[in-house]
Amino acid sequence: MKRLNLADSREFSPIAIRSLVLHDSPYFKIINFNLGAGQLFPVHSHQIEGQLSMLVLEGEGEFLSDTASQPARAGDLLISEISEPHGVRAKTEMRLLVTIAPPI
Amino acid sequence: MKRLNLADSREFSPIAIRSLVLHDSPYFKIINFNLGAGQLFPVHSHQIEGQLSMLVLEGEGEFLSDTASQPARAGDLLISEISEPHGVRAKTEMRLLVTIAPPI
Repeated sequence: MKRLNLADSREFSPIAIRSLVLHDSPYFKIINFNLGAGQLFPVHSHQIEGQLSMLVLEGEGEFLSDTASQPARAGDLLISEISEPHGVRAKTEMRLLVTIAPPI
Repeated sequence: MKRLNLADSREFSPIAIRSLVLHDSPYFKIINFNLGAGQLFPVHSHQIEGQLSMLVLEGEGEFLSDTASQPARAGDLLISEISEPHGVRAKTEMRLLVTIAPPI
């Protein structure tokens, strides 16, 4: 068992999104992304099988696809195919917990 | 893509733990467990390959194994093998987001 607290990876940078890998195994990868206000996680996709979940821990912004956007607020949970274009734009400082299965 | 908000599954019962499956796919299963104060998720394990993550969304209690316990507070993230004995005891009302990969 491994236990950690998300408060310990609460780091923002004015230069770029902070990405902290919390766990990586053959089963899933768990990453904490911290976006400063206005920062963009560009829309991207990978042509592989699998899905990801993206939980907004705090802050607000928008979930992006290649054609649309929808609000992203604390408590919102997005599920996407890894092969589906997805991204995020932060309006405020924004923290995301992303789980990718299988890991990429 | 699928988007939901965790506030929509915030339900407690005095009788038993509320368990709400938020997502189930070949890649992972995501469940919101809501425990009333004092409720116990008994220590259990399954002899299969895989891991689970358990995020405390709110409240406090203890993560349990067959031999020990450790504090569980909002923001704590526990990673466990599915085959490792694990459980939770809630001290206050407590919400957990559990991701199991591969799903069982």
